[in-house]
Amino acid sequence: MAAESPRVRDLTEQDLLDRIFPHLPVGSRTLVPPGDDAAVVAAPDGRVVVTCDVLVEGVHFRRDWSTAADVGRRAAMQNLADVAAMGARPTALVVGLVVPGDTPAAWVEGLAAGLGDACRPLDVGVVGGDLSSGPVLVVAVTAHGDLEGRTAVRRTGARPGDVVALAGRCGWSGAGWALLAAGRPQLDAGLVAAYRSPEPLVEAGALAARGGATAMLDVSDGLLRDGRRLARASGVTLDLGPPGTVLADDVARLRGAADALGVAVDDWLLAGGEDHGLLATFPADATLPEGFRPVGVVRERGGEPVLVDGRPPRAGSVGWDHFAD
Amino acid sequence: MAAESPRVRDLTEQDLLDRIFPHLPVGSRTLVPPGDDAAVVAAPDGRVVVTCDVLVEGVHFRRDWSTAADVGRRAAMQNLADVAAMGARPTALVVGLVVPGDTPAAWVEGLAAGLGDACRPLDVGVVGGDLSSGPVLVVAVTAHGDLEGRTAVRRTGARPGDVVALAGRCGWSGAGWALLAAGRPQLDAGLVAAYRSPEPLVEAGALAARGGATAMLDVSDGLLRDGRRLARASGVTLDLGPPGTVLADDVARLRGAADALGVAVDDWLLAGGEDHGLLATFPADATLPEGFRPVGVVRERGGEPVLVDGRPPRAGSVGWDHFAD
Repeated sequence: MAAESPRVRDLTEQDLLDRIFPHLPVGSRTLVPPGDDAAVVAAPDGRVVVTCDVLVEGVHFRRDWSTAADVGRRAAMQNLADVAAMGARPTALVVGLVVPGDTPAAWVEGLAAGLGDACRPLDVGVVGGDLSSGPVLVVAVTAHGDLEGRTAVRRTGARPGDVVALAGRCGWSGAGWALLAAGRPQLDAGLVAAYRSPEPLVEAGALAARGGATAMLDVSDGLLRDGRRLARASGVTLDLGPPGTVLADDVARLRGAADALGVAVDDWLLAGGEDHGLLATFPADATLPEGFRPVGVVRERGGEPVLVDGRPPRAGSVGWDHFAD
Repeated sequence: MAAESPRVRDLTEQDLLDRIFPHLPVGSRTLVPPGDDAAVVAAPDGRVVVTCDVLVEGVHFRRDWSTAADVGRRAAMQNLADVAAMGARPTALVVGLVVPGDTPAAWVEGLAAGLGDACRPLDVGVVGGDLSSGPVLVVAVTAHGDLEGRTAVRRTGARPGDVVALAGRCGWSGAGWALLAAGRPQLDAGLVAAYRSPEPLVEAGALAARGGATAMLDVSDGLLRDGRRLARASGVTLDLGPPGTVLADDVARLRGAADALGVAVDDWLLAGGEDHGLLATFPADATLPEGFRPVGVVRERGGEPVLVDGRPPRAGSVGWDHFAD
C-alpha cells in the first residue's frame, strides 16, 4: 500500500471509478457493459444461476492479514465456487462496495485488481456495482453462471451406492488461518496463501455436471459440516474413508504445520473451511472427472448423516459440534 | 417494532432465516429456489439484465426516519427501477445483508416484509442472499430482468427532434426528505411517504421499450443531474419546458410544503432525487406509453446538456452545480 495514496474521501466518485475500471475484465458474454442503469449479460441457456456472498472487515477478513488483492480474489472466488457447485460456468459478477472515507484509494484499486485476477482467466466479466461510503469495509458480490444446457446439480440427488468425491484442496485454508492466528505465518507461506487467496477448481463444477454428478456443493464451512448438509438434503449418509488414506496428499501437505502447532491434522481436514472445494456424488460406475478424487461412498440414511472411517466423527476433535446446521 | 423482539445476536442464523423467508415471494420464474449453493432463474430471452445498489444506515437511511419495511421497499424499488430503465421486466432479486448483533429480529423481519411488498405484485422472486454480522446495517440488492425479446434501451440513443418524457413522480421524495430534515413531517404525510417508500412506475419501463423509446434512465439523483447524464451519453441537449407547465401536477402537489418551508418548488422538481421516475426520449411521432408525460424536446448538442425553459438552469437555485457528473 503506497503511503502516498490519497484517501477515498479526497476523490470524487468518478475519480475512484476511473481508478477501478482498468482492473476489471468486461467478459466476452457482456452485451451492455457498466455505465448504464444496468448491464446486460448473455444467458444462452435461457436460465441464469445467481448467488450472493458478503465479506465484512473484521468478520471475514482483516486488513493486517490479507492484502486488498487477496480480499478481492477471495470475494470473487467464493462466489464463483458457488456457481460452479451448481454445475454452471460463471459468466459475470456485480460488486457492491462500502468503503470508509479514510480508506486509501490504493486499497480499493488493489481490491479491484484482485477481483480482476480471479475473473479474467475464467472469462468472467465484472459488469456492474455500486460504491458507498460507510463505517466499515463491505464487499458484496453477486455472481452469475450459465448451465450450458445441463441440469443444475443440486444438493438433493445423492443416492445410496454413489461415490463421494472431492475436487480441490482440503484443510489448507483452515491451516493457514491457524498459522496467522498463532502469529506464525512464516512456518508455511503456502498454507497462509491458501487462506488469503483460495484457488477453488471452478472449472471442475461444469466437468462434474457433464460427468453425471448426482449432487454437489461448495465446501465453505468444512468437509463435515457441508457433508452433513448434502447428506441431509439428499436423505442419505456419507461414509467417508479414513482421512489419512482418502486425503493422503492433503495430510502430507498439512503435517508439518499441524505438528508445529500441536494440532491434529484431522481437525483441519474435517472442520477447516474456505478452501471452496467441490464435494460431489457420482454413480458408482462413473469415471470421475479431472480434479476429483474419491473420498467415500453414499449409504442409506443411518443414524448419522456423515461417518468418518465407519464411525460417527468425534465431536471434540473436530469442532463441528458448535454448529446447529 | 415490538419491544420484546429478541436481538439478532440471540438467534442462530437458521432461526433468523426462518423468520425472514415467509415474507419473501419465490417468483414464478424461479427454477431452483434458495437453499442450494445458488438459485436458478428463467432467462427466456437469452440475456439477463443485472444491476446492484447498496443502502447503508446513516448514509442512505435512518432508522428514526424510516421503518424497516420502508427500507426494504426502497432497496427493492430503486433496483427494480434500474431494471425497468433498460426496458426490461424485473424477474428476481438477491439480497446481501449486514446486521449488527443488537438489531431487533423484528427489524430484519420488517425489512423482509418490505422487500416482499415491493416484489410480490410484480412477480419478482427474492431468490437468494447472504447474512452477516457487522457494525452497521447494509442492504445490498442485486436485481435481474428479462428483455422479452426487446432491444435494451440505453442512455445513448436520444436524437434531435425526439420528445423528452417522464413517468412517475417528480420532486416528491426530495420534498419528503426536506420535511423530515426540517423536523416537520406532519406538514405533508404523503410527501414523507414518497421519500420513505418511493413508488416508481416499474411497469412503464417495458411499455417505453415497446413504445419505441430511444433512450431512458432512472431518475435517482434529480431531473437535471440525470438529464445531463442522458444528454451527454447521447451527445444531445435536452430542452425541458417550463417546470410550472410541464410538471404542473407535481407543482400543485408540492406547493404547500414548499411555501411552508420557504423553498422554491423548482429546487425539488429539478434537483430532488430518489423518486425513481423514468426519463425517456421517444421519436416525435410516437404515441407516449401510459404513465409518460411530455416534458421537453431533444436538440442538437449545444453549450449546455440541459436547458430549462430555454435557458441554462441557474446553479444557485437548484444545487446541481455541486456535482461533477
